[in-house]
Amino acid sequence: MRLSRGLLLSGASLAVGVALGAGLTSWKLKDDRGPKILQPLIVEAASDISRPPSSGITRFGLPGLSQLKTRQSHVLSYDPRLRGPVWVLEQLNGERIQGDATREDSEFIEDDSVHHYHRATNSDYRGSGFDRGHLAAAANHRWSQKAMDETFILSNVYPQNPHLNRNAWNTLERSCRGLSRRNRSVYVCTGPLFLPRTEADGKTYVKYQVIGDNHVAVPTHFFKVVVLEKHNGELELRPYVMPNCPVDEKIPLERFLVPIETIERASGLLFVPNILKGSSNVKAITAGGK
Amino acid sequence: MRLSRGLLLSGASLAVGVALGAGLTSWKLKDDRGPKILQPLIVEAASDISRPPSSGITRFGLPGLSQLKTRQSHVLSYDPRLRGPVWVLEQLNGERIQGDATREDSEFIEDDSVHHYHRATNSDYRGSGFDRGHLAAAANHRWSQKAMDETFILSNVYPQNPHLNRNAWNTLERSCRGLSRRNRSVYVCTGPLFLPRTEADGKTYVKYQVIGDNHVAVPTHFFKVVVLEKHNGELELRPYVMPNCPVDEKIPLERFLVPIETIERASGLLFVPNILKGSSNVKAITAGGK
Repeated sequence: MRLSRGLLLSGASLAVGVALGAGLTSWKLKDDRGPKILQPLIVEAASDISRPPSSGITRFGLPGLSQLKTRQSHVLSYDPRLRGPVWVLEQLNGERIQGDATREDSEFIEDDSVHHYHRATNSDYRGSGFDRGHLAAAANHRWSQKAMDETFILSNVYPQNPHLNRNAWNTLERSCRGLSRRNRSVYVCTGPLFLPRTEADGKTYVKYQVIGDNHVAVPTHFFKVVVLEKHNGELELRPYVMPNCPVDEKIPLERFLVPIETIERASGLLFVPNILKGSSNVKAITAGGK
Repeated sequence: MRLSRGLLLSGASLAVGVALGAGLTSWKLKDDRGPKILQPLIVEAASDISRPPSSGITRFGLPGLSQLKTRQSHVLSYDPRLRGPVWVLEQLNGERIQGDATREDSEFIEDDSVHHYHRATNSDYRGSGFDRGHLAAAANHRWSQKAMDETFILSNVYPQNPHLNRNAWNTLERSCRGLSRRNRSVYVCTGPLFLPRTEADGKTYVKYQVIGDNHVAVPTHFFKVVVLEKHNGELELRPYVMPNCPVDEKIPLERFLVPIETIERASGLLFVPNILKGSSNVKAITAGGK
């Protein structure tokens, strides 16, 4: 009885709604080799996956697959359980960060390509004490008002400590723009981390807050993996992690460098294999000196 | 300084390794419409995604996409961050649950199709106090020794409370086999939940243990969504949730039924849209009477 009641309480803390709506959307890349660097990826629905066949184990389709979202300024993979992205990928260069676009008219908006069960809304943030923290930074995309506006879609956003957002994290974002002026290109991949901690009972736990009716996950940390492509073709890797709490902005950015393996293990993502495929000229810089 | 040290501690709690290894593997379904119900899905590497183009935002590929694994007995989507599946899908029928396959020679093995950073191992479970709990149950697949053996791959497994695994959860699994004898077909989708709880500070948190060097996530709950296809073609939906702790096996299974929306919201998955696409003859049974 006790257990059963505990279960019902957990269930009741989830908002309840109607189970109708848009089906699962699974995407595949159609063409990402265009000569124009800024050309948005063209995606199409992979109807052979989302439409269930008449019999067999997938008769009723698959309940979930990667939700890839392509915007002018960034590409992201959305985690419908966290109500936010797994990773957000951008490419910066010196020309694109200078432009006329302004965030004055930009508004945070829901991502209506995400099922309403799994979508963050502005009201989830209201009174939470957290900023709506961009993953692809708005100021990286002054080259196009549309590109900048799209960074305000809430699938590019996580709850972020206001002090962090406005100070040390902002410094890291500005540093990326600075690097894009001095290099051929800068690739930036940003995402959430939910790092474990060992507690007094000797066991290790992942614990993170969720906010609002939609239970938007509050990451414990954020990562930013920066790949610099220099004018001589050499690559340099700078993997950063910052905790989602006030960070003294006097601490040099270098102190937040970590071994790329730390981010790869904790995030469930892989960066190095793809980078090695793309270049044989990698100089990796990490806190561990690897 | 304090914050920076906290970060290093968090990072240090993650095992460190070498960043070389197999690249990201992204899969797409090639053919899932075969006339034979038991025919395994044929998958092929989506080389257009995993091989980076020479320029553009995806020059270094995408750091992660759904990892779909197809076995004789089940299909699953793997979450490399959790070190376990997001969902595992099976199809049962009366004939297949009767056979000569035995679990006596089956062994739990690592999934070597998963990068070693993101893979659960037997040593992660050792001394943890948790069983290696099957999601697709071994006894559902007596029709083929290979099918049964494949349920022992650790990507079909989560840390499960031993009492739950051997009692109430086992009763639920047996109930699915019983249903498969009395219906045309039974589709079972099983997965982990990480349900939030409101704490004394008034805030809501998700908290779950991780075990072993690889930090294998311990779900707070498990769900099982059972779709019965009756001999008259009518469909019935039975969505169950059980907490990952000892559950009195005298509590009737019906007490663990929940509204399907509860599972859909908490898991980030969608079942109903695909079921409605597959049939217009759905009778949904849930604890909420929906």
